[in-house]
Amino acid sequence: MHTPMAAGEAALVAGHGHGFVLALPENEPFALDSGSALLGVKIAYQTYGRLNAERSNAVLVCHALTGDQFVASHNPLTGRPAWWDLMVGPGLTLDTDQYYVICANVLGGCMGTTGPQEVNPASGKPYGLDFPVITVADMVRLQCRLVDHLGIDKLFCVIGGSMGGMQVLQWAASYPERVFAAAPIATAARHSAQNIAFHEVGRQAIMADPDWRQGDYQAHGTRPAAGLAVARMAAHITYLSETALHRKFGRSLQNRQTFSFGFGADFQVESYLRHQGSSFVDRFDANSYLYITRAMDYFDLAAEYDGVLAKAFRGIETRFCVISFTSDWLYPTAENRAIVKALNAASANVSFVEIESDHGHDAFLLDEPEMFRTLAGFLGAAAARRGLRRP
Amino acid sequence: MHTPMAAGEAALVAGHGHGFVLALPENEPFALDSGSALLGVKIAYQTYGRLNAERSNAVLVCHALTGDQFVASHNPLTGRPAWWDLMVGPGLTLDTDQYYVICANVLGGCMGTTGPQEVNPASGKPYGLDFPVITVADMVRLQCRLVDHLGIDKLFCVIGGSMGGMQVLQWAASYPERVFAAAPIATAARHSAQNIAFHEVGRQAIMADPDWRQGDYQAHGTRPAAGLAVARMAAHITYLSETALHRKFGRSLQNRQTFSFGFGADFQVESYLRHQGSSFVDRFDANSYLYITRAMDYFDLAAEYDGVLAKAFRGIETRFCVISFTSDWLYPTAENRAIVKALNAASANVSFVEIESDHGHDAFLLDEPEMFRTLAGFLGAAAARRGLRRP
Repeated sequence: MHTPMAAGEAALVAGHGHGFVLALPENEPFALDSGSALLGVKIAYQTYGRLNAERSNAVLVCHALTGDQFVASHNPLTGRPAWWDLMVGPGLTLDTDQYYVICANVLGGCMGTTGPQEVNPASGKPYGLDFPVITVADMVRLQCRLVDHLGIDKLFCVIGGSMGGMQVLQWAASYPERVFAAAPIATAARHSAQNIAFHEVGRQAIMADPDWRQGDYQAHGTRPAAGLAVARMAAHITYLSETALHRKFGRSLQNRQTFSFGFGADFQVESYLRHQGSSFVDRFDANSYLYITRAMDYFDLAAEYDGVLAKAFRGIETRFCVISFTSDWLYPTAENRAIVKALNAASANVSFVEIESDHGHDAFLLDEPEMFRTLAGFLGAAAARRGLRRP
Repeated sequence: MHTPMAAGEAALVAGHGHGFVLALPENEPFALDSGSALLGVKIAYQTYGRLNAERSNAVLVCHALTGDQFVASHNPLTGRPAWWDLMVGPGLTLDTDQYYVICANVLGGCMGTTGPQEVNPASGKPYGLDFPVITVADMVRLQCRLVDHLGIDKLFCVIGGSMGGMQVLQWAASYPERVFAAAPIATAARHSAQNIAFHEVGRQAIMADPDWRQGDYQAHGTRPAAGLAVARMAAHITYLSETALHRKFGRSLQNRQTFSFGFGADFQVESYLRHQGSSFVDRFDANSYLYITRAMDYFDLAAEYDGVLAKAFRGIETRFCVISFTSDWLYPTAENRAIVKALNAASANVSFVEIESDHGHDAFLLDEPEMFRTLAGFLGAAAARRGLRRP
């Protein structure tokens, strides 16, 4: 599929079902914003489509908090549809007949990229809480290492929603000359107090679970499943709009005509949430959840630029398409508009669309025709400008 | 202060700091909506002001999920200001120089009224999960028993916010001839899917705590403090608006200049939430939290009337004042407007005010001059109509 290029001594290693895994040289420290460094960092990724001869058609997709590198088709580990299978694939908006799509598991994740569940080379044991706290910029720096390895000087596009959108913004700020086009979707340039508050509830739920064992649950053979499920349930509510919850469930009862007058899942919405919680536990690592939510909370792009977001984009040539959804109350339109305002203040090339949808934050993952049309138009124009051939 | 009247063999008993406690006759079953009945029910209450000779100036205040009977001045158990000390007292909106204010701890509560932490007379042990699931109508039926005991045929006003507002609506529907005026504030005639979802997260957090012991923690000498704290943290976010959280905390750090790159409370909002969680645990019973949230989830006033809310108020003479707050996303204006619409359809006497506030749901507990003015006007006009003397 792709043509890996040597960058340092980085090497592809077996991914154990995680797709491709790029291993940085074992003695090369990967420096982090915290001042710490990691040794022997691996990044698991997946590619779709073909890199063209000019290496000009690469699209990097950045995933959200609980996403992974399996962006198109299906997830080989779960057998279920990939998280953005409606967006990425042959003939779809991110057309893999035209673009070479790359998606990597983020640093701190639990799908093959170095994270708290991986073995710490210094101790020979899983990191657990010895894993250093990471930032969105750290995630992006590691992705850049992968892009180097793939021999790509300039990405045609970097795109993502939610935390994926934060990475898009960080890419544009950190490596403007390497990003031709950027599409941050349903995101924010900084995490709000309410965002932080919801994450903190999730972290406290995990850390309150005695099976968490101060983060050392792998060594104890336990899993903080109950705490992680509660964290996921709380978060899941924030991904949906009140309207969507009402339309989906209302006050309908679950397989019953009358109240049980007990604490079972009388309501469909309870049953749905419990399922969201328990199924999440099977596919996600609790410590990864702590580290990635922390990285999101720390995200405040303007802070690196004297608190002035426009400075992050000064002189940038990248063309932007910013998308928000009317019923997204987690990263509401106002937050996305703040990004647009800063881009305008930096005289950047930016288009902005607020899409009418009652799907809430999750809209970016769903069948939203206007999102597909908007992005198809944006990518088509950018591809023409970049001289990419149509499929 | 008040003049207790005999109603059955109900008797005032010692309240152990909970104020007055009315005990129903020990052999009198108190029937519940679930079909169960409770024996030896007690209701703890507080009164402020004097009942006039005509017994026409009584105002029943109904408290919210975590409220109690100490509505005015200070709470003698905590030494802190009472939860509605800005509303109720001499010279205040609910002027105790004019009105005789009654407030009772709800059935299922943990401040002296019969609830899951009280001793089950059948077993001689605390109820725990043997306590029957109760409803808002059950709470109101018990309050009515208290009002009987106090010798009051018709309450001048029933007032409350949030779950208190639900009780107000239930009072008006169940006992229309006993309510002269009613003021439901920041409430809803039914719990929405999102409301239920947030409550379910809280319940799951409590029940996931091993110290909960299937509800039998009193016998085990444990307390599900961590789970209850997480439940409170999640709920607390829903009581505030995004704007209020932003204004109060933004992304300010707690006693530090830079990130800790750890999982301590770096942000003020985290520290605040943790405090909200841990201080709540000292004053509230975890099982009461389960039962009361369940009662709220079950609340759907229209369901008793063929799904038509207006039928709940058919022919009602009570005059209503419905109040909502613009930034309340837990019981938004639309839910309050639905109450007004039903009252209008029932040709009831109703005024409605949506108050501009960025305090979120908590606004009803705070210094909201327009709320005080609105209620003062409403109560004044109703008092004149009722022939109450000014203080």
